[in-house]
Amino acid sequence: MSTLLKNATLLPCTTGMPVIEGGYLLVENGRISAVGSGDPPAGAGAEVIDLGGDILMPGMVNPHCHIPMTLFRGLGEDVDDRLFRYVLPMERKFVSPEMVRVGTALGAWESIAGGVTTIADMYYHETEVGRVLDTAGLRAVVGQTIADFDPPDHTTIDEGFDLTEALAAEFSGHPRIHASIAPHAPYSTDIPVMARVAHWGADHPNVPVQIHLAEMSTEMAWAEKTHGCRPVEVVDRAGLLTPGLIAAHCLYLNDAEIARLAEAGVRVAHNARSNAKAGRGIAPVAALREAGIPVGIATDGPMSGNTLDLFSQFGPVSMFAKLRGQSRAPMPAVDVIAMATREGAEVLGLGGEIGTLEAGKAADLIRISTAAPRMQPIYDIYATLVFAAMPDDVQDVMVAGQWLMRDRQVRTLERAKVLRDAGQIAARFRAEMVEIDRAREVGQ
Amino acid sequence: MSTLLKNATLLPCTTGMPVIEGGYLLVENGRISAVGSGDPPAGAGAEVIDLGGDILMPGMVNPHCHIPMTLFRGLGEDVDDRLFRYVLPMERKFVSPEMVRVGTALGAWESIAGGVTTIADMYYHETEVGRVLDTAGLRAVVGQTIADFDPPDHTTIDEGFDLTEALAAEFSGHPRIHASIAPHAPYSTDIPVMARVAHWGADHPNVPVQIHLAEMSTEMAWAEKTHGCRPVEVVDRAGLLTPGLIAAHCLYLNDAEIARLAEAGVRVAHNARSNAKAGRGIAPVAALREAGIPVGIATDGPMSGNTLDLFSQFGPVSMFAKLRGQSRAPMPAVDVIAMATREGAEVLGLGGEIGTLEAGKAADLIRISTAAPRMQPIYDIYATLVFAAMPDDVQDVMVAGQWLMRDRQVRTLERAKVLRDAGQIAARFRAEMVEIDRAREVGQ
Repeated sequence: MSTLLKNATLLPCTTGMPVIEGGYLLVENGRISAVGSGDPPAGAGAEVIDLGGDILMPGMVNPHCHIPMTLFRGLGEDVDDRLFRYVLPMERKFVSPEMVRVGTALGAWESIAGGVTTIADMYYHETEVGRVLDTAGLRAVVGQTIADFDPPDHTTIDEGFDLTEALAAEFSGHPRIHASIAPHAPYSTDIPVMARVAHWGADHPNVPVQIHLAEMSTEMAWAEKTHGCRPVEVVDRAGLLTPGLIAAHCLYLNDAEIARLAEAGVRVAHNARSNAKAGRGIAPVAALREAGIPVGIATDGPMSGNTLDLFSQFGPVSMFAKLRGQSRAPMPAVDVIAMATREGAEVLGLGGEIGTLEAGKAADLIRISTAAPRMQPIYDIYATLVFAAMPDDVQDVMVAGQWLMRDRQVRTLERAKVLRDAGQIAARFRAEMVEIDRAREVGQ
Repeated sequence: MSTLLKNATLLPCTTGMPVIEGGYLLVENGRISAVGSGDPPAGAGAEVIDLGGDILMPGMVNPHCHIPMTLFRGLGEDVDDRLFRYVLPMERKFVSPEMVRVGTALGAWESIAGGVTTIADMYYHETEVGRVLDTAGLRAVVGQTIADFDPPDHTTIDEGFDLTEALAAEFSGHPRIHASIAPHAPYSTDIPVMARVAHWGADHPNVPVQIHLAEMSTEMAWAEKTHGCRPVEVVDRAGLLTPGLIAAHCLYLNDAEIARLAEAGVRVAHNARSNAKAGRGIAPVAALREAGIPVGIATDGPMSGNTLDLFSQFGPVSMFAKLRGQSRAPMPAVDVIAMATREGAEVLGLGGEIGTLEAGKAADLIRISTAAPRMQPIYDIYATLVFAAMPDDVQDVMVAGQWLMRDRQVRTLERAKVLRDAGQIAARFRAEMVEIDRAREVGQ
């Protein structure tokens, strides 16, 4: 039950972001019991693994995702109205517990293979998401979406709360899977629903709340038209700007709103690639972090961001900050890795459990090879991770002391079955796209 | 001497960007002799390779690079004045034929492994670059840099031309390596040197000219102060806006300048990631292409862009266009792949030889696996290539009928030696950085 990892380039991702050459880390009963450099402790009976100088760092935290949407990945790419043309009708028709299980398994495989060990999700039939992520061995915050647009798994808000209650009951006390409630967005839950979530949340202090916030120009227009204010104020009037609220996107914020979010204890999931792919804009990440708001690096759903590893996000996160700052200096590489680990854990309220490699924390960690020629030379290991490393460089992944991947082989999911199941559902989606396009042609 | 590739998802990258399922391609004597779908021709004695549905597409074209700078990759990342603090002093001290050979070999390995088959380079001791790229089996346009800032390999402009003459003589008539002359930038070659290049170029019609243009705000200020105009007009006054000029960057252009570049027959190398990492801005790619200017997707040197594959550029190229256009629609994925292949070849004046898979063209091609779970499902193969594929998905690479890589094993370079040589030079660079930082501390 104990494993000693030695001879690592150890990145504990603690304050100051030290780099420990020749580092060791001892895992006992799913937790880190010792970490340091020099002679490792004599772990009686521990399996000893020599990492040969490979990078050992905390597993990465993806604080915003719609993981079952792997099955929509690349569907209608570049079509500006694809949401209304394809996605919403197809979600209504096809989203089922089976579809959610299949899509989650595909996304779990990819997340593990890319070094992500914790995912905050929000989708439908979320109990199914939690079950699959549990089987995969991942850590997760699984959020049942509640919305008023007749979503696939509930026709009334009451039903949405019922699903959330069932989710919370199923995972109560689970060591890795944490239930969450996810009012979709201000424009799709409006003040009465958000206020109800706020009250419900007060009675369920261990169930984090997730929401999409200040993401779209249409959302700004809706808030102005409906309430004569901006989306942050709508959420504030509902009483939902509560400590620990996980707000995704946060593109359109002014200084006063940033100060209000900081004061309220809100945390932010930054979806750089998804926001940019949609042509929406660049979130004010530097200002948010300067205000003391933890900001994590998120993939968004794979229909929006395509991939589920954080390496694909590092370039955009870094570049957008430098473009906003018109300098090479903003968002140094070391900050990007801090956000992908420690800060992402703080966003999810899991900073005491994961996010750094320290004695006492859960053993959620990844090993990354630097053998690829594109990774060489290395002058700054954080710059290498941000600008040269790719998901395929991740060799091993451990969550709570369990190896989920060794030597690039995922152990908790059956790859062939995952791909076969996904292929069958994708075939149905393809046929439906043909029907939708045909109906559009007839209608025009 | 002949190879039949069959059962491919064939992307010839010809006009209309067709997708041919169950495609075949016959290579004879280094050239494509047949391409199509259905029953392949009975190639007498041809080696037959079943691609199992993998993607077969043209090798990618990287139209702007400083390949030996792999050795500077990640050095001083995030340091805004790293050019003057580290790079220029270190180039002056360390750039030698040996350093150029070692850095080029490292970059050649990475380029092949990432699916790039043609590179336009500009650096110093460029004959050495050409020799190493020749040995690696790549196709290249190798540009001898000429500049007035006392660069590492020439102290006078006359010497710069001497180096270029030697380069052109060495590769005259070479089937894959094409000599080029590369005046560094308006501010470092000014009008007399650029005019001399224009005259020299008129006598050497097969030697393309490369230049950095409209890249930096300091360049804009220099042009205004020195000539009372903008950089494009400085180059125009020198007579260097000639057909086939390869202009890298082109960030700061107004509509009149775009029209002038189009009229002159200039082509553009777009360095999205490098420009953004430096906080400089986003080139007006849509306007350039609408004006009829071919625009290729380039990596820039690995000190600026870090990686040398084009997959790392696809996200930025696409996202920046969508951000500029504030919509999901601009720069569809199919255009990104067209730019990475056919259009990149046109930028280098090689459109008749490479860039598409058509009978008669050189057999420069790559095979890409879609087996990785992150590549699935596939609704639009171009979206998959742009937003999910990564360099490690490239399986096989052929240039002029020669396999440079099979099953991810590069055949023309010795990986261990490439990494060992690079490591030795990087150690010298690291020691020099310590010295530079120490001297700065003493000076402060």
